[in-house]
This record gives sequence, structure tokens and C-alpha cells, in this order.
Amino acid sequence: MLLHRAVIPHLRQACRLKSAPSRLYIRACSTDDSLQPQCPSLAFSGDNSSTGGWKVMGTLLGLGAVLAYHDHRCRATQESPHVYTREEVRSHSSPETRIWVTLGCEVFDVTEFVDLHPGGPSKLMLAAGGPLEPFWALYAVHNQPHVREMLAQYKIGELSPEDKVPSTLKTSDPYIDDPVRHPALKVNSQRPFNAEPPAELLTENYITPNPIFFTRNHLPVPNLDPETYRLHVVGPPGGQSLCLSLDDLYKFPRHEITVTLQCAGNRRSEMTQFKEVRGLEWNIGAISTARWAGARLCDVLAKAGHQLCETEAHVCFEGLDSDPTGTAYGASIPLARAMDPEAEVLLAYEMNGQPLPRDHGFPVRVVVPGVVGARHVKWLGKVSVEPEESYSHWQRRDYKGFSPSVDWDTVDFDSAPSIQELPVQSAITEPKDGETVQSGEVTIKGYAWSGGGRAVVRVDVSLDGGLTWHVAELDGEEQRPRKAWAWRLWQLQAPVPAGRKELNIVCKAVDDSYNVQPDTVAPIWNLRGVLSNAWHRVHVHVAP
Amino acid sequence: MLLHRAVIPHLRQACRLKSAPSRLYIRACSTDDSLQPQCPSLAFSGDNSSTGGWKVMGTLLGLGAVLAYHDHRCRATQESPHVYTREEVRSHSSPETRIWVTLGCEVFDVTEFVDLHPGGPSKLMLAAGGPLEPFWALYAVHNQPHVREMLAQYKIGELSPEDKVPSTLKTSDPYIDDPVRHPALKVNSQRPFNAEPPAELLTENYITPNPIFFTRNHLPVPNLDPETYRLHVVGPPGGQSLCLSLDDLYKFPRHEITVTLQCAGNRRSEMTQFKEVRGLEWNIGAISTARWAGARLCDVLAKAGHQLCETEAHVCFEGLDSDPTGTAYGASIPLARAMDPEAEVLLAYEMNGQPLPRDHGFPVRVVVPGVVGARHVKWLGKVSVEPEESYSHWQRRDYKGFSPSVDWDTVDFDSAPSIQELPVQSAITEPKDGETVQSGEVTIKGYAWSGGGRAVVRVDVSLDGGLTWHVAELDGEEQRPRKAWAWRLWQLQAPVPAGRKELNIVCKAVDDSYNVQPDTVAPIWNLRGVLSNAWHRVHVHVAP
Repeated sequence: MLLHRAVIPHLRQACRLKSAPSRLYIRACSTDDSLQPQCPSLAFSGDNSSTGGWKVMGTLLGLGAVLAYHDHRCRATQESPHVYTREEVRSHSSPETRIWVTLGCEVFDVTEFVDLHPGGPSKLMLAAGGPLEPFWALYAVHNQPHVREMLAQYKIGELSPEDKVPSTLKTSDPYIDDPVRHPALKVNSQRPFNAEPPAELLTENYITPNPIFFTRNHLPVPNLDPETYRLHVVGPPGGQSLCLSLDDLYKFPRHEITVTLQCAGNRRSEMTQFKEVRGLEWNIGAISTARWAGARLCDVLAKAGHQLCETEAHVCFEGLDSDPTGTAYGASIPLARAMDPEAEVLLAYEMNGQPLPRDHGFPVRVVVPGVVGARHVKWLGKVSVEPEESYSHWQRRDYKGFSPSVDWDTVDFDSAPSIQELPVQSAITEPKDGETVQSGEVTIKGYAWSGGGRAVVRVDVSLDGGLTWHVAELDGEEQRPRKAWAWRLWQLQAPVPAGRKELNIVCKAVDDSYNVQPDTVAPIWNLRGVLSNAWHRVHVHVAP
Repeated sequence: MLLHRAVIPHLRQACRLKSAPSRLYIRACSTDDSLQPQCPSLAFSGDNSSTGGWKVMGTLLGLGAVLAYHDHRCRATQESPHVYTREEVRSHSSPETRIWVTLGCEVFDVTEFVDLHPGGPSKLMLAAGGPLEPFWALYAVHNQPHVREMLAQYKIGELSPEDKVPSTLKTSDPYIDDPVRHPALKVNSQRPFNAEPPAELLTENYITPNPIFFTRNHLPVPNLDPETYRLHVVGPPGGQSLCLSLDDLYKFPRHEITVTLQCAGNRRSEMTQFKEVRGLEWNIGAISTARWAGARLCDVLAKAGHQLCETEAHVCFEGLDSDPTGTAYGASIPLARAMDPEAEVLLAYEMNGQPLPRDHGFPVRVVVPGVVGARHVKWLGKVSVEPEESYSHWQRRDYKGFSPSVDWDTVDFDSAPSIQELPVQSAITEPKDGETVQSGEVTIKGYAWSGGGRAVVRVDVSLDGGLTWHVAELDGEEQRPRKAWAWRLWQLQAPVPAGRKELNIVCKAVDDSYNVQPDTVAPIWNLRGVLSNAWHRVHVHVAP
């Protein structure tokens, strides 16, 4: 359905350029249900679209494709196909070298199709020079007869027989056992593995599919056996500790919530543009949303005999990932948050209806709604209640904010609180910086989120660098009061002012404490490049 | 002043429609201070406007009114006026019958003016068919020459002699019983009384002395007898209501906390400098801190049989102050906050060790830590738990934030949440704007606070308009985690860079969710001028 809807404007556009009669025909069909009976032979069985209008569009898609891409037919290889190596295919990954992709053993030159790709050119470019399968697996909508038919027009040959099975890693290193990742991820660091979904996929879905959920690992991914896995929960002084198997954990009441996770370093690359920082070059994608299920931390702590005390205390978490010295990843959150049923802190064992993927903490991770990703400890091994925060490097010597005046010579990590709740944030995922948009009307999309369960109440979007503003439409699930743990997606259709050659698109969000994003990045610059939440800015050209 | 500013756009609009020359003239004047000397004869004596630009606008208002409403002049009765009875006037109280009002013995048809009324059409409609006096007595801003002049254009006749003295007008000034105030207060409005402490006193003490605590009244101050005072607490359906005397309230456990109150309109005058808004011209002093003592609201609600429920509910408060129609001031907060002992919502009867002063709600007011002042209902008469927010004007049609793109023609009050928690805030109280400081070293002082119990973790101060920053020293009481209800005072001693003739001093605060203040005021401008929390800027000269 997604594809159907997305294809229509592109087909219209293609038709406008290439075929006046087909344009008229498709337009008429796409707005008039009564035409459906006239083209029964084109209907797909099993179409599950929810409205008649969309059914018609879906029905016509095959025909539209045939009409629009008629002139590509000559490219199809008829007999004795050319044979290419995988390396040859890899070298064709830009408009200059032409854009090739593979599906199974077949090779396609999709250069001419890129601009017509219903999901946008940039999304198809993610697969340039490589196989389509990982992307089609993620977006199963591709796997339909009319899409295969469309693709067939671009076939130029086949892969050489010895190249058909991709080679595997041969070297041995601490990361050798890391899982295979989805090729759409933009990798910031292979070892440890850190990667984000590309902007154009990020807000395609309210729930981020597991394979492209942003991944922030600090160490190699442990390979844990769910049968022998145990979670050690230290009891209060004089009390007894718990040693919980996965089955033990399943016995606690199951709790399921939608939560957005964001890395403290999300959008760090914008800070770097102002002045150098230390940290991974995250773009706007170090944020993702999933449906998490697990036991509530407060239930597990209560079972271990803990209760809320008058004095400040902290719940410390240790991961089962560790460096060569045996030091595990660790972090902590205040006991008050951990013990508050309304804060819904989870020991999660499911992500979007699946066991946690290895990259996301299999078999158990902490999920702390509204709080920076760094406290959502993965591959959880140990939970304890302590009078002080975790002594982990990542709690005490990292993930803190400082004044722009503080540098590595003057920084005093003890002077700043560890980041827990994050500030209000938003970013534009469409269009992309540097892109050319059509005149007439522009569609702008993005995400917005705030920490601490604060709901997003408004997103303002400007086309003129912040002089005038439009109010975007908020999509995605309604947010619960005080428990707005998940982002809102948003979009705006706005007229492009006549005669404008370029647009300086800006977005800024407001949360329900009426906190706003700062205008510029320089005054919030900090040496670790965290908390980068200035207005997001995208500069685009307008097609003449 | 309020009226002056609010009237300008309507006059402009009127002028655009009706009179091109006047439009040009008013526009030129309203943007160019230098014109002031050219029209001295139009200046009102006693104009207390704070900037030259506004003085000119105020000065020109009389002229603007004359030009804009020129075509209404024909309506004014020149000789032998029509005579109407009060009953005839009463029958003209809707747009269909036309809208008449009286002032003294004169009768006016204000049908055409209703939509132009600076305070909104609905407020003028309260007087439809009757005398203006009770409303002008309440909102004393009306009683000025230019308002009378404007009204004169709509005169249609006079009251018949036997009808001239309405019994309702024999009552004295509703504000006559207001308490005597401290002369240090900077008065924004006498009726109702609204005033703030001057900046130089504001941060002299961590606890603001009662006599200079900022005062925000919406109506006359009721004069309540503590002996007969009763607080009505409505019980749950089927339950019993409470009727509490002061002695009854004293029997609940006494709870004492330090809480900063801030008006949503604090620092509105900076917003006005960018573009006019409707509201009182608060400087940086609509914020103060006191030690409050009282019963916890959760204890009183529990005693009345209320408990936290799964569905969203609200605790509605009604004051014992009321307008001539009997409408009381009202507001509400979510039940979840009211019932949370950690939120420490008080029914306060003491302010800094004294019974509440009359201006601050004697004998009982609500104190809602971390929440906008407008919900801290004074002279509390009634508490009830409702499925919806308070239907009060001040909850639903005021004290909400909007995009800068929203104006009075497009505003939809239902589209924005009522302000509850306020965003992070800070301001400079020393030196003052325009002051001359000594070279060598400068001392800068101010306050910083955030809503929702979020602690202030840092205040950055710049002497060069925000290019480079210093970290200020935080004074005042330590803040409790999640219960940082009171401000931090801060100061910085910084060397004045040699050779500098002026300093652009800027401050910005960071709270423990790492929310920051926006750089500039224009992008957070809103038609009511609330939530003004951009960097505070003070420009000073350096003594040679």
C-alpha cells in the first residue's frame, strides 16, 4: 500500500513528461472509483488496501508502469546474457558510472529509474552497486509481480556463477562474532559497531524496523546462550539476591510500551561543523522507536526486597559486554525513577514482537523511557542498588554536558550531572540537504521528541531560515500525558513562494513544558558533542 | 498602555480599508521615533510608556481614532439627541438587534466596534444592552481620553432623564477595598492590581520579602473574614463534600516548602519589542520566591474520598474573587499531579512565616510547585475533581502558547495545551540595561529557574553577545532532585576586556533535562506574549 500510494505522484510525473494520454487516463482513474470494473483483468488478488480509491490505483499500477516505462523495454536482454562479477557491479554505484543493482543472479542498470523510484531516488541509491534483497526484505511491499515486471525492463545481464554467494569474513578479531547487519545502515564505526538508518528511511515508519534501528555499541556484541543466561539482581543489605533465568523473568507481569531511544550524540555532525568534538559522527539518525516488552524493573526490584528510601539512591546496571580488561559497560538511573511504576522502566526481552536482536541486547536490556540511550544497558548481567551513581566511565566521564567555554584542558566531569532526561528535539528527514525540490508545493517530513515523558505539542517549520513559520501536522500515535515516551512524526505541505530559487528549511519543536530548541548550535557546543538539539536546517534548491 | 498597543493593529486595519493617507502617516510614525517632536501637541500628559516608539503610537492614537472612524461621525447626534429608555437600550444586546451600551447619560451603538475591541469581542459583549461603568471600573485602562474619544464616534443618543441614574451604578469602586501596596513595586496595572519588584531588589534576597513579591491579580481583592471563611471540597460521586474552616485546614499535617512562582507573562516586554502582543508589560520581575506552609492538597483530597484513577482527570480550583457577572477566577491542574505526594501541591495559609497577605490570597491559596503562576489560585473557595480541565477563561482561552504565525484572526485556543510546567528561564538583574560599569572587573547577578522541579545545572554568561561564555557561580539553597521548586540566584565576576567601550551581556540557563533557553525572542513570539524565555540581554557602557 505504501508503495502504491507513493508511486502515484511519480507515475503522474512520468506520464506528464512522456505520455499525455496515459496521464489523463491515470488521473481520471485515481480519483474515480467507478472505473474499477472497467479494468478487472489488472486487479491483483489479495490486495488488502482499505479504500476503494487506493484499490483502483493499485489496480492500475501495473498498467501505469507499462505505459510509463514503455521506452525502457528495449534494454531487456533477450538472449545469451552478459556476465558480470560482483566487483564489477560494485563499481557502478553513481550516476556517472551508471547505477547497477542485483536481485538473485540477475544484474540491472536502474540509472534511468532512480528518479522515478516511488520511495524517492535516495532510497534506491542505498542499494547502488549491490544486492536489492536486504532492502526488499525490509520493505516487503517490493516483492510483488508488478514491481518485478518493472524491474525486468532494466535487466542487463547476470552475475558470474562463482560470485553468486557472497564471501564471509575470514579474519579473526574481537568483533568476529558480531552479527550481520542490514546494508541500509549508515556505519559510523565498524568496531565497535555504530550505525544509523539513513534519513530517508527513518520516518518511513512510526515503529522503526529492527534491522535498521540505530545501533550504539561500545564493545563487541556478546554471544549469549538464552538457556544459560542469568540476570543477577543484588538484594538489599542483609537480604537475598536473585539469579533470574529468562523463564524466571517471563513470570513477572509482562509490560509492553512504545519507546523512542536517542543517543546523546545524535546530530553531533552539526556540532562538528562549528568546531571539532570527540565522538562518532552521528547525523540525524541516532534515534529510533520500537515496541518493547518485558518485566517492569520496579517489580523485579520489589521481588528482590528493595523499596524506595528517603535518601537518594541509584540503580546500577552492568552489561555482559566487556573490554579486554574485563570491564563491562555500565550505567545507572536514580532509584526514584526505577521504583516508580509510572516511569515504566523495563527489563525488556522483546523488541517489536521479536526476541531482542543481538545488536540490541539479546536476551535482556534495560529500557528507560524518556532517558538518554546510554542508560538502556544491553546484554544486562547485573542490577544493584547503590548510594552513588555507577562508577562506570560512561556514567561519570562521558555523557555529560558542558559550557562551550570548557575544553579538554579545563573539563571537570564531576561538575556536571550525568545526562538522564534529554531535551526537546526534532529534525527534518525529507527533503535532504542540497536536494532540488519542485516549485509549486513542497512536502517536508521529520520527527520530534522530548525526554522525560514530555509530549510534543507543536512543530514549527520555516522555509525562509526562521523568519516566518508554518505549523506542521503531527502524525504517529497519540501521546499519553506524562508518559509521552515515543516520538511524533510530522509533515507539512507548504506552497513554495513564487520566484524562490532556494529554501532554507528549518524545524523546531515545542514540548508540553513549552521548552523549545535553541536557534543555533554554537552556543550549545560542548567538547563531547552531545545534546545537539538546535533548530535543524536543510537547504534545498527549487527547480525552475 | 495595554489598550494603546492592542488597538494599533485594528487602527491600521481600519486605516488600510478606509483611508490611505492616514495609513501611511500612522505607519511612518509607528516605526520612527524621530517623528515624535513633530507632533507635540498630540502628546498625552502622564503617558507612562517605557519606550519612545510606544510613546509615539500612544500619542498618535487619538489621531488614528479620528481618522479611522471618520465615517462613524455622521452617527453622532449633533443636536436635539434621540432619547432612549434604559429598557430600550437593554433590548439591543445582540448583533441581530444591534449592540448598545451606555456611559453616564449617553447611549452608544457599538455594533461595528465589537470585533475591534482590543480585549476581545466577548468581553465587550458582557456589557451589551447595559452600562459600561461596572466594567470600566474593573478594567481601569479604559478610563483614558483616547478611549472616550473613540467611543464618542458611536454615540446615537441619550438616556431619558428619569432613567439616567441606574441603581447598579450607585455602588462604589470595586477596587476601593484593595490593600495598600509597597511603593517599591513597579505597577503595570492598578485595576486589577499588577506589579513587580524592581530588578535591583529582586535578587537581593533568595526569599522575596512579602511586600515586594510580584502581584498578579485578575479582579478586585476580596476581603475575607478568617472566622467565617470556608473551603468547599467537592467529594467524589456518591461521597460527601468537605466544608473546611481555617482551623480544619490547620489540622492537616503542615507542610512547608520553598517555591518560586512565575507569571506566564514574565519578560513579556521583550516580546513586545519585537512585535506587539496583548498583555501586561512585565519586565523581568514577574517572578518571586517564598517559603510556603499549608496542607498538602493530596491529603485534603484523600480526606474527601478522592483517589488517583486510571482515566485522566483534573482538579479544578475556584477563587472567591469575581467579576460583576459573578464569574470567579478559576484554573485546574491534572489530578495525577495533585495526588502525587512528591509533587507537594499545597493549600497554603502561610507565606514566609506570616498569614498570606491579602494580595497573595488570604486566607488560602493553591501553590503548585514547578507550574505557571496562573494555576496557583488565590482566595481559594472551591476544589473539585472533574473529568475535564477547568472551563475558566484563564484555563481555556488564555495562558497557552502558539506559533509565531498565529494571530488573533487565526488563533484556535483548543489547539494548544494550557500552560502547566514552565520552560527553563534566567535573567540578569545587575547591571541594568544602559548602565555604565567600571572597567577592570564587572559583577553580574541574576536568577535562574526551571519548571517541573527540574534543577538549574548551569548558567552561562557572555560579555560579547554570545560569542564566548563564562560559567556563573550558583548561589541560594541547594536544589532537591526532581523537586527543584525554587530558583537559583547566580553571579559572575568577570574581567572587562581592555579597551572595550561597551558590553553586550547575555545569560542563558541549563536545567537537569539539559533544556536550554532559545537564542532570540522572535521565533518564540506569540500573540499573548507568554513564555518569553530567550537569552536575557543587557547592554552596558564601560567607563573610560
